[in-house]
Amino acid sequence: MHSQARSKKAVVVGAGPVGCLAAMMLAKRGWQVFLYEGREDLRQPSTKAAAQQRSINLAISHRGIAAIHAVSPEAAERFMQTVIPMKGRMIHHLDGRLDSQLYDRDGQCINSIDRALLNEGLLDEVSRSPNVRMFFRHKIRFIDFNRKVLTAEDLGHGQEHTVDFDFCVGADGSYSTVRRQMMKVVRMDYQQEYIKHEYVELKMPAGHDTPGRPTFQLDPNHLHIWPRRSYMLIALPNKDNTFTCTLFAPSVELDRLSPPEVFLPWFKSNFPDALKAIGEKNLIHDYTHNPRSPLICTKSNPYHYKDRGILLGDAAHSMVPFYGQGLNCGLEDVRVLKVLLDQEEVESNSPTGPDNLEDERLARALLRYSQERHQDLVAISDFAMNNYVEMRHLVTTPLYLFRKVLDGWLYRLSSHSTLPVTSLTTKLTSQTYDEREPRGWLPLYTMVTFRPDISYDTARRTASRQTQILTTATYVGATILCVSGLWLARTVKTWIR
Amino acid sequence: MHSQARSKKAVVVGAGPVGCLAAMMLAKRGWQVFLYEGREDLRQPSTKAAAQQRSINLAISHRGIAAIHAVSPEAAERFMQTVIPMKGRMIHHLDGRLDSQLYDRDGQCINSIDRALLNEGLLDEVSRSPNVRMFFRHKIRFIDFNRKVLTAEDLGHGQEHTVDFDFCVGADGSYSTVRRQMMKVVRMDYQQEYIKHEYVELKMPAGHDTPGRPTFQLDPNHLHIWPRRSYMLIALPNKDNTFTCTLFAPSVELDRLSPPEVFLPWFKSNFPDALKAIGEKNLIHDYTHNPRSPLICTKSNPYHYKDRGILLGDAAHSMVPFYGQGLNCGLEDVRVLKVLLDQEEVESNSPTGPDNLEDERLARALLRYSQERHQDLVAISDFAMNNYVEMRHLVTTPLYLFRKVLDGWLYRLSSHSTLPVTSLTTKLTSQTYDEREPRGWLPLYTMVTFRPDISYDTARRTASRQTQILTTATYVGATILCVSGLWLARTVKTWIR
Repeated sequence: MHSQARSKKAVVVGAGPVGCLAAMMLAKRGWQVFLYEGREDLRQPSTKAAAQQRSINLAISHRGIAAIHAVSPEAAERFMQTVIPMKGRMIHHLDGRLDSQLYDRDGQCINSIDRALLNEGLLDEVSRSPNVRMFFRHKIRFIDFNRKVLTAEDLGHGQEHTVDFDFCVGADGSYSTVRRQMMKVVRMDYQQEYIKHEYVELKMPAGHDTPGRPTFQLDPNHLHIWPRRSYMLIALPNKDNTFTCTLFAPSVELDRLSPPEVFLPWFKSNFPDALKAIGEKNLIHDYTHNPRSPLICTKSNPYHYKDRGILLGDAAHSMVPFYGQGLNCGLEDVRVLKVLLDQEEVESNSPTGPDNLEDERLARALLRYSQERHQDLVAISDFAMNNYVEMRHLVTTPLYLFRKVLDGWLYRLSSHSTLPVTSLTTKLTSQTYDEREPRGWLPLYTMVTFRPDISYDTARRTASRQTQILTTATYVGATILCVSGLWLARTVKTWIR
Repeated sequence: MHSQARSKKAVVVGAGPVGCLAAMMLAKRGWQVFLYEGREDLRQPSTKAAAQQRSINLAISHRGIAAIHAVSPEAAERFMQTVIPMKGRMIHHLDGRLDSQLYDRDGQCINSIDRALLNEGLLDEVSRSPNVRMFFRHKIRFIDFNRKVLTAEDLGHGQEHTVDFDFCVGADGSYSTVRRQMMKVVRMDYQQEYIKHEYVELKMPAGHDTPGRPTFQLDPNHLHIWPRRSYMLIALPNKDNTFTCTLFAPSVELDRLSPPEVFLPWFKSNFPDALKAIGEKNLIHDYTHNPRSPLICTKSNPYHYKDRGILLGDAAHSMVPFYGQGLNCGLEDVRVLKVLLDQEEVESNSPTGPDNLEDERLARALLRYSQERHQDLVAISDFAMNNYVEMRHLVTTPLYLFRKVLDGWLYRLSSHSTLPVTSLTTKLTSQTYDEREPRGWLPLYTMVTFRPDISYDTARRTASRQTQILTTATYVGATILCVSGLWLARTVKTWIR
């Protein structure tokens, strides 16, 4: 119990997964939490269909799970019941060949989950907390961070009312209102960039080998990829035996492919097996009805304002989806903030001091969050961008495969073994969130995906050091080969004489 | 007369210099123009004092003058009466030494002008146009670009009203509302960055050698610089014999210097001659009363939306002030837009076609603006950032001075001569705005400052080619020197034997 914050009020804007977890975390620390969401409650039957229409599948991995676990171990356990584990990538070559590339030598998996399902689960968890009040269909219009008051509009009744707060969390996504309002009082560096590619979602229905018993049309324990150099298709499994497929392609290419009579033959020649599983009719329906969505990358710095505001998740940093880390990173934001709040409490001598001491502690934790988290967020955002090239092309090149083998081989040699997520979460309840010097050889993908005890920034530095070692080793190896070759040639020449 | 656009309505947001020039340009093309400005009319006696308080001096050069000339030759002529020409930089060394560095071998000058004075002059010019209606103290709250309607709030009466428009120009500065509204309908790449330095304005009063006859305390025909490596002071002359001084320094340094008893000795040891001219009392007054202002750099892309919106000046690109090109570039935006509108009109076969043809022409011109102007804006923004290091430090280094001499020497050798701004403006009334392949050797500063017929991007490419030539020449020279040295040593050795 954190009695000193009992009467203070936090407003969390955005009831997506990150906003829900932040609300839970603050409520557990004794804050009175008001959670605002512009859309309707996802769990209402009337909105379910609409929500699923827009839904995108997510790959949640150790970081996301560890973050939920840090706030509520029970929630993490319940959550794990709803996912489908994927142990590797399944590469679909143009000639029909399939190629399974495992994510981890010890069998660690990433997990496919429907975004709406995850969100509903977390909303249920939030509902269990007596400290949280939820307001759906409420839009935040204006925030005065200095007077600590905001204006919210009840979209149902078209009425505006003011709400005072002590602390405001912006978890309202890429086009965050909280960020825009915070920029009026904070000199914030900010950038947004639309990459020149877009995506369209397509549904692959369940198969029906035996009537009445739906089956998966592809192996459900893989993330399927059809890499085609400048574009790609991916597929993630759902609990109802369907797959959600996503086509990524350059905008100009999609412009060209706009008429169905151009699109269909193009799709057929590039993804023949996928077309067979999706069906021509479904494909054309989805392609003409589903929106072409943009891919935006945003970066901000700093993320906080004094002792009263912070941006988490996509509101602070939205990344392209190619490392499957967007949501994991957003949930981890909440865990990192929690760790820093805990640390400031421990380091402060008087845990139940007067109000201004509390505010100072909060201000210090938020400042540290901006300072310590920034490099992590830049690192994962860059990884995500680079991974697009890897997924849609490199995975099929010999050099990539050779490096992957070498990487895996060195990893196997090293004494390290990946901890299963259950042991990891226990380890992470300790106060730290970054092991600055990971021991042994670790592939980048492993660090990013399966090691939440290693920060993204540490992962970047470690991977860059390992790449240098590999490069040097290659040079030394090549030199030794050359010298021995020359020596051999000379010896042979002497013999011949 | 451009009869085909006679009845169409353009809204220009922001009545700064760029907004005024844009309003004049559109009015001359037959548009009915509504010009909105959030602040009061600068020309009202009550607001003059306040406006001058905030004013910053500007250095306007050939690009700015050419842009005004392209819209209204008379306005450009009237404008030239109010400026003070500066023929070079005057470097103030720490030991009191002065060093004049001319801007141009042919005596071309940049011109110091008070921002408020320039703005007032342009407002007067706008008032002369019967097609323009001005609304001061009106804030734009919301723009619906698809329905072509905006909401403006009359701050005087606290009333909101809607205004329909055909074309909306955002010239409302770094924190542009038009840009923010446009971002809702355009996938705009955008970035803003605060550099880690701030500036404070200080006033250097007029001297009084003879009672009743004010004099300049420094040479008025120079831009004065006190380069001190990580910080610097500059001074620009005003018509009333004062100088406006600006101190640029890292924010952390200004934090440290916050108490006047720390600031005064620091200023005295770094800028002894400036202190003498400003006076201790004035200095402390200005330092404690004037705000510490941030330096922001923003970039956007694209700048337009279909046939109905465009961002000009700081609203599209605000740069740090170290190349003295911010305003020049903003005014040039208007000229470039004018040239493209003219070109689309000429290239179109039917100049008085139906409405939708007009819209198409406008859409094409705006698209070309975004495509052709972007590289220019990136180039000048980067030049401005790089020039900070040059101004506060490099100008005193031997290598810089050597390169400048070499650059000037090659420039003198080349047949080119800088056209005075009066001949240039005549040349520029032709339809082009970029001479893709400038002849002869041209220093970068000359191209940027005195050659509006060369775009910033062409200037960048030309300068980069020239740098390559210089570097290669240096290598070749060094090699020849080495070889001749060796030959000489051998010959001497032979002789001695």
